[in-house]
Amino acid sequence: MRALWLEDRRLTVRDDLPTPRPGPDEALVRVVLAGICGTDLELLRGYLPFRGVPGHEMVGVVVEAASAPHLVGHRVVAEINIACGDCAPCRSGLPRHCSRRRVLGLRGLDGVFAEHVCVPVANLQRVPDRVPDGSAVFTEPLAAARAAVDEVAPAPGTRVVLLGAGRLGQLIARVLATTGCRLTVVARHAGQRDLLASVDAEVVGEHETARLAGTADVVVEACGAGSGLATALDLVRPRGTVVLKTTSAAPVGLDLARVVVDEICLVGSRCGPFEPALALLAEGRVDPLPLIAATMPLEHGPAALERAAAPGAGKVLLALSATG
Amino acid sequence: MRALWLEDRRLTVRDDLPTPRPGPDEALVRVVLAGICGTDLELLRGYLPFRGVPGHEMVGVVVEAASAPHLVGHRVVAEINIACGDCAPCRSGLPRHCSRRRVLGLRGLDGVFAEHVCVPVANLQRVPDRVPDGSAVFTEPLAAARAAVDEVAPAPGTRVVLLGAGRLGQLIARVLATTGCRLTVVARHAGQRDLLASVDAEVVGEHETARLAGTADVVVEACGAGSGLATALDLVRPRGTVVLKTTSAAPVGLDLARVVVDEICLVGSRCGPFEPALALLAEGRVDPLPLIAATMPLEHGPAALERAAAPGAGKVLLALSATG
Repeated sequence: MRALWLEDRRLTVRDDLPTPRPGPDEALVRVVLAGICGTDLELLRGYLPFRGVPGHEMVGVVVEAASAPHLVGHRVVAEINIACGDCAPCRSGLPRHCSRRRVLGLRGLDGVFAEHVCVPVANLQRVPDRVPDGSAVFTEPLAAARAAVDEVAPAPGTRVVLLGAGRLGQLIARVLATTGCRLTVVARHAGQRDLLASVDAEVVGEHETARLAGTADVVVEACGAGSGLATALDLVRPRGTVVLKTTSAAPVGLDLARVVVDEICLVGSRCGPFEPALALLAEGRVDPLPLIAATMPLEHGPAALERAAAPGAGKVLLALSATG
Repeated sequence: MRALWLEDRRLTVRDDLPTPRPGPDEALVRVVLAGICGTDLELLRGYLPFRGVPGHEMVGVVVEAASAPHLVGHRVVAEINIACGDCAPCRSGLPRHCSRRRVLGLRGLDGVFAEHVCVPVANLQRVPDRVPDGSAVFTEPLAAARAAVDEVAPAPGTRVVLLGAGRLGQLIARVLATTGCRLTVVARHAGQRDLLASVDAEVVGEHETARLAGTADVVVEACGAGSGLATALDLVRPRGTVVLKTTSAAPVGLDLARVVVDEICLVGSRCGPFEPALALLAEGRVDPLPLIAATMPLEHGPAALERAAAPGAGKVLLALSATG
């Protein structure tokens, strides 16, 4: 089959990979659309020592599933963490935090930038008919966005500042808008601000944050840069909450004393369950379709990732096959 | 009156200070016992630009109180934050986070290492008769210890690791023991371990923490050193909570990515309300008397602070006057 292949930080298009064979509890899925995520771009920079087919956001159609024949022919999305079921986190009900977890296209498992992918049946969710492919492919990042918002569950009227309006920030903004909070989004690029025109939020540039200092009940940090936490601590009020989405080492000189003196809560958020994200799509409460900047064929994969890496680039999708 | 005086990081005993005159909503309190806290030692090192009488932990007797004559002659403890009542935090019900707050013996107000101190009547709490002076003087740090535990409110059986068994750590250990959690205390000094013999907890040395990696539901970091947060992140499980008590800049190389990937909650805690701390003392649920390492007269104040600064030193009190 055809797929993208990552090795030694080099991405190539290969036509010589065997179509994977599903195990007894796995399904073979024909990928329809795949999404390019910031983490894929980090992979290329060596963030994780991954070798194989990258990609973890997709919508596809089940081709084969010995243990779940009722799924064959149906559209699915796939939860990306594959747990061992036996370690301490698994036994305490935290399979997404399995200490031996494999992760689709990120750790120990070939991913979805391919014509076909094998996924455990337990990881699949059927896509409701009224959710188009172009929305369904956002399920994984939308689940992460929703989980970040769910950590604080802002009540209507809560003053929330979202730092960052990139691929993930746009989704978080849309989820926050469903809560009735008073939302301010700090966006770097004009294109990002344009995409927020349909969202019930005040949108400001990075140099307009000084007047927000100490006013936010909640800051959601999703700017993808290590400096985000320091800015978040500037904006949050005493006893407020900062939700951290950016994976980075602590910026040197970070004022953690402020966390103690002002009794701030910092909470990290990585990913979330798929069902509520699919519900947001099915109910039309979040519409990610305007976020698609380009849809490119698999054979243009390296160029697609390059395009996604440009500053302010929106969501770039890879089209693998048609649904039908 | 006689008092300790801090100026340019030098502490002296002075006999020439005027006895303060209480304002209309203030009380004049004759100090009976005062406690030396780590923050007092930090003040001497220049942590805050304070000039005046230091000290913020005390039990005393009300001498004069125009607006509250019923308090005269009674034993009291005093909440240390004096709020403006008008700033955004005050108006939102967070007076302890007043942006213009004065703090007894720490910021803008003379403190309790003196024969007399003036305190707003609103800050006073009467000490129940069955609480001896030597226990009542612990009300302020016990309130801080209880607030730190209250941030997580561990259910019985919760695996809690407390990092640090110094003055504050000893109090936190005793409050944690009242919750029924499964407590492990990491103590540096033999004397600290001895003081924990009466507490229902496993006590281990700093070099025995490796086997605890990733197992704690909750870590309370109260070791007074910047390295505490990194250790706490080593010990906490995915989706666990770290309560931060140490005010320090972020250690260089701190792995904040772990906070995101493992979805950890970090919560800062500074101080707490006095009522529940006084209740713990009155009900005999926490007995701080064994923690008193020495009680010294005010004229030996500089030596008392020096003694309190020694590694593993317990609680050093200053005796100012008798209760009667």
